[in-house]
Order: sequence, then C-alpha cells, then structure tokens
Amino acid sequence: MKKVNVAIVGATGAVGQEMLRILDQRSFPVDHLRLFASRNSAGARIPFRGTDTIVEDLEQADFAGVDVALFSTGAELAALHGPRAAKAGALVVDNSTAFRTDDAIPLVVPEVNGHLLAARPPIVANPNCCAIPLVQVLAVLHRLAGLERVLVSTYQSVSGTGKEAMEELRRQSVSHLAGEDDPPQVYPRPIAFNCFPHVDAFTENGYTREELKVAQESRKILGLPDLRMSATCVRIPVFRSHSESVTVEMRRPVTPGEAREALRGAAGIEVWDDPSRLHYPTPRDAEGGDSTLVGRIREDLSQPGAICLWLCSDNLRKGAALNAVQIAEHVLSS
Amino acid sequence: MKKVNVAIVGATGAVGQEMLRILDQRSFPVDHLRLFASRNSAGARIPFRGTDTIVEDLEQADFAGVDVALFSTGAELAALHGPRAAKAGALVVDNSTAFRTDDAIPLVVPEVNGHLLAARPPIVANPNCCAIPLVQVLAVLHRLAGLERVLVSTYQSVSGTGKEAMEELRRQSVSHLAGEDDPPQVYPRPIAFNCFPHVDAFTENGYTREELKVAQESRKILGLPDLRMSATCVRIPVFRSHSESVTVEMRRPVTPGEAREALRGAAGIEVWDDPSRLHYPTPRDAEGGDSTLVGRIREDLSQPGAICLWLCSDNLRKGAALNAVQIAEHVLSS
Repeated sequence: MKKVNVAIVGATGAVGQEMLRILDQRSFPVDHLRLFASRNSAGARIPFRGTDTIVEDLEQADFAGVDVALFSTGAELAALHGPRAAKAGALVVDNSTAFRTDDAIPLVVPEVNGHLLAARPPIVANPNCCAIPLVQVLAVLHRLAGLERVLVSTYQSVSGTGKEAMEELRRQSVSHLAGEDDPPQVYPRPIAFNCFPHVDAFTENGYTREELKVAQESRKILGLPDLRMSATCVRIPVFRSHSESVTVEMRRPVTPGEAREALRGAAGIEVWDDPSRLHYPTPRDAEGGDSTLVGRIREDLSQPGAICLWLCSDNLRKGAALNAVQIAEHVLSS
Repeated sequence: MKKVNVAIVGATGAVGQEMLRILDQRSFPVDHLRLFASRNSAGARIPFRGTDTIVEDLEQADFAGVDVALFSTGAELAALHGPRAAKAGALVVDNSTAFRTDDAIPLVVPEVNGHLLAARPPIVANPNCCAIPLVQVLAVLHRLAGLERVLVSTYQSVSGTGKEAMEELRRQSVSHLAGEDDPPQVYPRPIAFNCFPHVDAFTENGYTREELKVAQESRKILGLPDLRMSATCVRIPVFRSHSESVTVEMRRPVTPGEAREALRGAAGIEVWDDPSRLHYPTPRDAEGGDSTLVGRIREDLSQPGAICLWLCSDNLRKGAALNAVQIAEHVLSS
C-alpha cells in the first residue's frame, strides 16, 4: 500500500488511543499523521513511532490533504465534521452512531460485508461494539444454515463508555474494598462489584438504544432486514472486552460440531471450545487481541437444532478501532 | 409457632452464617440452637441472640432432640448426615444437590409449591440459587399464560461459591488494581474484572451442571417436566446477589403490562420497572433483602407475545438461607 496521510479525530479518547496503537502494530502506511480533539485537549503532544504529534482543535480543522480520517467522537461532532472531511477528499471511517442507520452509507465489518467498500464510499460507518463480533459469528452461521432468530444477552466492559468510566470503576472498586462509599458520577448506578441492564438511553418500547442498535445494525450488516432479533445489554465490572451469550435459531437444524467447524475456518474468529480442558474465552483472554473468541458452542436444549454459544471480543479493538483501521486497509488495498 | 430446637449444619459457611442472621431477623422461635461444622471448625464460638454457641463436630453429631435441621454442606455430607437427622426426628431442609432430583423428596419454593409441605416430608430439598428466583417469576407467568419455553443467561456472584471465593475476588481485585498478578486458587480463571461461562463442572453435552440444574430443578418445582428450557451460567465479579436475563415464551401472547401486573401481586416479588426513572434492579439493590426484584419487562422483539425480563435476588438469602428458613416456617405453622 502506498503511504497515506491519516487523521485521527477524537485522538485522546480510549478508542482514539487504541487507533494509534493499531496503526503502529499493523505497520499501517502512515505518511503524515494529524490528531484532532476538542479545544481542551488541543496542544497536547502524543507520541507515534518516535515522533510527537501536537493535537489540533477539531473545530478549526482543515482536512485538506488528509487521505484517511478515522473518527471516534460523539455522533454530533461526527455529523458536523465527517462530511467536511469527506468533502476535502478523505475516506471517513466513523465510529459514532451518526451515519450507521443512513441507507446511503455502508455499515461495514470487512469479514462480513467488505464487498461494499469496492464502491469507494466517501463515508463508511463503523458498527456498534457488540454488533461487530456478533455479526462475525452470525454471518458464518447464516451461510451454514440460514438465520431465523437471534437472542443475545451481553456482558459489557466499562471501556465502551470511555476513559472516565474506567476511572470510575477503578476508583469505586478501591473505595468499596475499603468499606467506603463512592457515589457514581459517570454511570447511573454503582459499577464496582455490581452490574446493571442499562447501556445507553432507554427508548419508548422499554429497550435501550444499545439493545436496539445491536439488532438493527446486525440486520443491516448481514443484509437481513427481517431477521428476528432481541438483545439485553448489561454493563459488568470489567475494564475491557465485551462478552455475549447468544442463542441462534436457523432454517435447518445444525449440530454443535457443524457450527464449530464452520466457525473454525472463519476470518477474525478463533474457536476456544474444549470444556474438558476448561477451554473457553473470557474477557481477559480477548483483551489486546484481534480475534473474536467463540466457545461454549452447544445445542440449545430448549430447541433441538438451535445453537447456544458464548463470545468475547476486545471492544476497543475489533469492536471499534481495529475494525475501523481494517475498513481503511480494505479500501486502500482494493 | 411453638419454640423448636434448631440445628444449623455447615454453620460456619456463607449460607450457614446467613441462616443464623435470618433466624434472628425473622424472630424464628428458636428454643435450643445447635451448630455443626467440620472438625476444623469445631470448638469455635458463634454468637446468636446474645449467647455464644459452641460449634460441634458434624461427624460426631447426635441429632436427638433436634426439631429442625437446616443443612448447608456439600452433597456428600448431606447424603451421609441428612437421613440420620431425619431418622432422629428432625425436619431436614437441605441446601445441597444431594436430594434435589430424588423423586421421593420435594424440592420447594414455598410461594410456588409450598403445598407439598402439607405431607410433612422428613427431608425437603432447597433448590439451586438461580432456580429459586427464576421459578418465582415463571410460576406467575405460567398461571398467566402457560409456559412454553424459557431461555436464561445468568450473572452470578461469587458468594454462591462460598467465603473463599469472596476472599479471592477481594484479593485479586486489590492485586489487579495495584498492577500485580494474583493467580486464581478457587476459580479456574481470574475473577477480578473478568467473567467466565463456567459455574460448576462441565458435563458431556457441553453444559455445566449448574446450567442443567437450573433447567431440571425449575421443571420439578413448577411441575412441568416437559418445559423447554436452556441456561447459560456465567460468574461475574460481584460479591453478592445473582442476576438473570430471561426470555419467556408462553402459550398465548402476553403484553409487558399484563406480565408486570401479574408479577406485582406475587408474594416474594417486587417489580422495579420504570425505565423513565431509571428504575430497574441491580445486584446491590437485592443484597440483604428478601424479595426477588424484577425489571426490564418488555416484549421480546424477536417473538411477538413473548417476554424478556431481568431479575436480581440475594443468592445467600432467597437463593439459599431464606428459602430454607421459609420452608421450615411453612411446615411449623401448618
């Protein structure tokens, strides 16, 4: 790949920092690097491959000359500045919700629907951190036997919320172990040694936006607008990596062996599934890695031929930064 | 109720200690109290209502004169000593798995199948800590519309494993926050800031014994041997109270409003379900309380007429000690 000028927008956040690490780890052909953040962070110096880059104020950003802009800001800022960067000629990969449900903008997990990138869209949306690993698995099972219905309960780490949430978990854990009270600031409830079924805001039908996103985005990425799907999204006191308990009903009955075999050959997936050796994934195993780890693949005892499984994936990497960088790589190398 | 002689077998464990607290809190009519544990703990003094009781060696136990024996030991010890206590004339309420699947022995959650106690069985089995709150909810929905299929993913606290597991979570959390390594001793994997889909031993079909217990025991308690049911049981870094994400399919479609209304009137259940006020249960809310808290009651978006919900219940209380004491109360007052 020829060298390109890369901008990271939201460079000081948890995902922005992970994007930098991943560009380096993958030897991404960065020519000139530019980093953008809110005015508060402007002027900070962030090292990359031995050189410090000074963070620029996003509001004043001139994207001229940028080839690839990796956005990891809130949806409002992405909606404001993403199209500006695209107009200036950059390939925009946006990690927010701003463009995900826009029919004109592809929502991409390269292993699943990377073919959409052949059209070189100016803006590509990066999916929700629970939807990405889930569709990696679902795409395989769909090819195998045709998806009919998916139920998922999540076990989500606090890094999905950001650095302040990680700090809140750390601080509250210390306080709780010391027998002291430490009222929540980032979250609506204590997160240390607790969990809550509340990720993102509640909507009118009693579901949270996160729960609806997991279903809606999975349908869009898989190209299955009528897939029957329901999610329960739960925050647990884990710093990093999301886990999911998934039940999948398919058009034809599938054995655990068949499902395991199909998943074993899939890009981006590692099957960790040998209970006799206590081999199954945990969030800590997925942390820092590139693969979505899948285990506990077994028959749904309530529905012969359906499959239950468990997956873990680093929400900052494949669930966010890695998938974004992979989208850029896919476009550049095609 | 007339005063009775009570024995707690396994008095020094997490559940045994909670039994003592509950006897006191509920003004249980204890005449003479006897405490049993392994030889290691024999001789220890445990206070109850202002008096110390000396722990006796279970192996040497003579149960003569004991009216109610609350067992909270492993299954082997329960199988050995439970029948001895029953033969000596005690009502045995056993918290282990020793008698749960025995057709001749009732498995009881008083709110659900307390009528089985009218026959004054010599031994009553106390169900699994996840099954108890689950069947409280399922019994209500069964009366409402007839259960067809139940899927559950659990979020289980470490106190279900015992005191050493609570200590392991505490110690590992401190180490992890200090950046130090602390290899697991009680659990197969690190539990601090992690989770794993592994509760109790694995069986041949890929399910853990815990997952099979949840289904088998629920069927027995509900008197529905053919209920289609599957569970995924996950340990999370919470000290106390288990949570469950549950999907329930019924013979006739049920609205969330109907389900909520039916659950609101049920003994032992509190409905905490007003997302607009961020009102939903968490493990910390359930801790120390007697009720199973139910929230997030909503339509299963993948199956119209089915219901998704979330519950939290103190696994040491309703999930173990409280239910056992309630069984004894039920027998004594009938």
